[in-house]
Amino acid sequence: MKAQGNVRGRERLIPVARGISPADILFEHAELFNPFTLEWSRTDVAVKDGIVVGTGRYRAKTTIDLKGRRVVPALIDAHVHIESSLLSPPEYARLVARHGTTTVIADPHEIANVCGTDGLEFMLGWRGKVPIDLFFMLPSCVPATPLDRGGAVLGAGDLRAFAGRDGVIGLGEVMNVPGVLSCDPEVMEKIALLPVVDGHAPLLSGKDLTAYILAGVQSDHESTGIDEAREKLERGMFLYIREGSTEKNLRAIIPLVTPENASRCSFCTDDRHADLLVSAGHIDDCIRSAVGYGLEEEIAIRMATLSPTERFSLPDRGALSPGRIADFCLLAEGKEFTVEKTFRGGVLPDLETPVPCPPLRGRFACDPPGPADIALPGSGPARVIGLVPHQIITEPLTFPVNDGDIPDTGRDILKAVVCSRYRKGEIGTALVHGFGIESGAIAGSVSHDSHNIVAVGADDRAICRAIGLVIRNEGGLVVVDPGEESVLPLSCAGLMSVLPYGEVNAALGRLNRHVAAIGGRDEAFMYLSFLALTVIPALRVTERGLFDVEAFSDVPVFLAQDGKS
Amino acid sequence: MKAQGNVRGRERLIPVARGISPADILFEHAELFNPFTLEWSRTDVAVKDGIVVGTGRYRAKTTIDLKGRRVVPALIDAHVHIESSLLSPPEYARLVARHGTTTVIADPHEIANVCGTDGLEFMLGWRGKVPIDLFFMLPSCVPATPLDRGGAVLGAGDLRAFAGRDGVIGLGEVMNVPGVLSCDPEVMEKIALLPVVDGHAPLLSGKDLTAYILAGVQSDHESTGIDEAREKLERGMFLYIREGSTEKNLRAIIPLVTPENASRCSFCTDDRHADLLVSAGHIDDCIRSAVGYGLEEEIAIRMATLSPTERFSLPDRGALSPGRIADFCLLAEGKEFTVEKTFRGGVLPDLETPVPCPPLRGRFACDPPGPADIALPGSGPARVIGLVPHQIITEPLTFPVNDGDIPDTGRDILKAVVCSRYRKGEIGTALVHGFGIESGAIAGSVSHDSHNIVAVGADDRAICRAIGLVIRNEGGLVVVDPGEESVLPLSCAGLMSVLPYGEVNAALGRLNRHVAAIGGRDEAFMYLSFLALTVIPALRVTERGLFDVEAFSDVPVFLAQDGKS
Repeated sequence: MKAQGNVRGRERLIPVARGISPADILFEHAELFNPFTLEWSRTDVAVKDGIVVGTGRYRAKTTIDLKGRRVVPALIDAHVHIESSLLSPPEYARLVARHGTTTVIADPHEIANVCGTDGLEFMLGWRGKVPIDLFFMLPSCVPATPLDRGGAVLGAGDLRAFAGRDGVIGLGEVMNVPGVLSCDPEVMEKIALLPVVDGHAPLLSGKDLTAYILAGVQSDHESTGIDEAREKLERGMFLYIREGSTEKNLRAIIPLVTPENASRCSFCTDDRHADLLVSAGHIDDCIRSAVGYGLEEEIAIRMATLSPTERFSLPDRGALSPGRIADFCLLAEGKEFTVEKTFRGGVLPDLETPVPCPPLRGRFACDPPGPADIALPGSGPARVIGLVPHQIITEPLTFPVNDGDIPDTGRDILKAVVCSRYRKGEIGTALVHGFGIESGAIAGSVSHDSHNIVAVGADDRAICRAIGLVIRNEGGLVVVDPGEESVLPLSCAGLMSVLPYGEVNAALGRLNRHVAAIGGRDEAFMYLSFLALTVIPALRVTERGLFDVEAFSDVPVFLAQDGKS
Repeated sequence: MKAQGNVRGRERLIPVARGISPADILFEHAELFNPFTLEWSRTDVAVKDGIVVGTGRYRAKTTIDLKGRRVVPALIDAHVHIESSLLSPPEYARLVARHGTTTVIADPHEIANVCGTDGLEFMLGWRGKVPIDLFFMLPSCVPATPLDRGGAVLGAGDLRAFAGRDGVIGLGEVMNVPGVLSCDPEVMEKIALLPVVDGHAPLLSGKDLTAYILAGVQSDHESTGIDEAREKLERGMFLYIREGSTEKNLRAIIPLVTPENASRCSFCTDDRHADLLVSAGHIDDCIRSAVGYGLEEEIAIRMATLSPTERFSLPDRGALSPGRIADFCLLAEGKEFTVEKTFRGGVLPDLETPVPCPPLRGRFACDPPGPADIALPGSGPARVIGLVPHQIITEPLTFPVNDGDIPDTGRDILKAVVCSRYRKGEIGTALVHGFGIESGAIAGSVSHDSHNIVAVGADDRAICRAIGLVIRNEGGLVVVDPGEESVLPLSCAGLMSVLPYGEVNAALGRLNRHVAAIGGRDEAFMYLSFLALTVIPALRVTERGLFDVEAFSDVPVFLAQDGKS
């Protein structure tokens, strides 16, 4: 029971709160934000043993004058896959802490898809060793669907073994919507494992959304439109409003948030690359964006602090009130929400020194394909995966296509290839519109959720070369063109770099410039990483070929081949 | 784990929610309140197996046309002592259900003070047998203070045995504020037992309030002023705004409630006699009053429905959203909030037939006192307990007094006597101002929290006679004057009647008319019942005599005797 741990040992703090014994530190002259009232007030904050013992005048061994600066509780990400940053957990923590975040609710389902329970153990093992608090939701969908074949299968029994572990607070996004709606016993068993259950219901509405909620799923972070978000909120779901690298939902959904419902709304980043974390920030960036879209700053800060603690029953944080942890942000002068310093337990953690992360073998048991392996014979009207800018949903397009003309850089119809990293010879090919690549290819071992190798390119040999380069590096993101190769090795399960975040950011910059040089769109690797995600509409590519999410089945690229496979 | 029980067995509901199988009942044309958005909408509500499966059009075996009537989730009392109604649990349930309440968070600390763990078992035994859901907070302070001597002492070990019991959801109001502030190990042990901890901190503020919160106490329902309530809210406490029979705090505190903080505010009745429940109502009355004091009705309804479910982690109720229980109120036509019918699990429970309750011996091991036992020798300036209208706090008054002139009906200075019901010969006497009794006496075996016999009267013989009458009835409320005796027997632990609520209400009416006939003030028995409550400022009377709550010690009535005892 969480609360027990929280209140044990309070005896030494009570005399301090009463003003009888001195505090460790008094932060004087703070302009303090109160998420219970959404008000600011000029006061002092007393801290002992990392806990806020009180506000107002207190004796203390040390005083720190905050000179009227604004102080807010440290920020919380309600739903994130740390792996998606491409950073190791300690480097991710160091980076987001600089942006004011000290608590994340992480779903380690990327590494679980690659490494199974070893991946969960790897992530859980970082608790207490990084400058933020890591809470985990157990990945509910490994693999993402019964059709996916990744590196592991986690059943309800596997998850049960983790359900009581320190830091495990719920079940992660239940993406298997068909499994819920059809009452799949394994899915229902997982939902009953833990009292907190996160959802994933893009575009689900009406009676099917109702049934999904009734089954026990309590939240959603996949809404892309305000009507979709409103329907979920109205039916009792907690909303995590997402602003990832490609999944940008704030602009659309922020107008839904009011003082009346802010307690049921939080922010999340879900998937945010290191480069965006460096350049724009983390939850601090969500607050700035929300304010930019018209939300009152005080409501935005509540969403980033108190609201997620209410949703996840974490009453030891989210406000600088008596007995809560002294994690807070000192804002820079000026009106903008800019985190200047992040205090953790009342002290400034070392956020300057990179923390090494050991590599973790990423299971590359496959061979590089040759051009024959990615041939796509046929002609006539063809299904083409259409990227949707700033969204992870794709649209189902149809183009007249002759296989001899593919790739067709004129119409931006390129091959998208998935090569299983776990099993030899499993290679699927489809068509995609929207990448804009005019020569060469890109490939990567980050490919939600099975994390096979995925590639898109303007010629077959470049695609095969790019995949081979990923395999040789045992994971990574690569760009190849006739003249040049760029590689960011991802030595941690083929998902995360073991390098300091500054080096990862620089490497991503080089990769992205190289992508731009061959004509590719911005954030190409993020779009690439979602091409195989079979739980998000509409069309995807897997190691078996083209996949129709709504039909939940493999489909041929060429319409003329329908029903022949 | 609560959620497990809640979602198990959902398989049979999911096809109904999807519209594949028919619902049991469709409530058509409801003007439905949504506590997530604070909006009303015209829709239908489908129910299967007592659970809301969805809103909107559904097939169903039965349809009920609500003809556009307003429908709200059934109401919740966030903190109540059922014993204070003077009704047995089944009759209490039947009465409040008529007023729209189907969930109460009850602290059975009255019966626990009399009967110990047998009292807890008695109350827990009614779960599932009455037309409302009973949730229990374990009484944290039995006796109320270390100085009190009631019928039982419940240590942390005793409570631990109940901590995992079905329906037990937290620790009840921690009244031993000095024990918290002094880090009493037994008190700290109790606070660590359960994750939900309710508080009781009348007039506590500043650093001592801070320390009390830091110790792990999360709520308060004792605020009498808006500044007091604001301070508690600001520091992170959940507020239960109370409107009992004598403790009327709504008018003062409702102006504090805003859309921003309504999720952290609920209603409670704490102590409400049967007669007020019959005449005014229960939480429905709180909603009407709050609206009368200027609160938006929608916010008031949220406070009575969703807010307490969020505070107590009861996500299976508080809204008519998918998967929650179909407990709801049909409001009468018109603008006022009047509950016409209460549905429980989608059906109308039988609220017409009284439910018998077996008697429970109330432990009357004492003898009636004689006038010599309640003599109060002395003269000069005397401490007098001053009643405060509509509050349970008392004010410390001083009057010049000669013992020969007492009772002094001219100045309304009467004797207040406490006679232990558990031990012979323990009788304490003090002076009280505010009852207005001009002849005869009143007495009762309801006397928070030890529930000794307490009496106030205009002559010593009448006081003794009244106490004797309580003892002969093995518990009750009585009024005596030279010509007449009125008695309401309380055969259930000397706290609750075993009669149907209509009969109890009629008997209370007779008692109150009799009290008025001898000059006594309205709600005299409620004030009487708090005279011995040693945890509420300022002066109280116990079986040892006068008690100063702030000094936390017995004090003499006559100031001249200070330091001589």
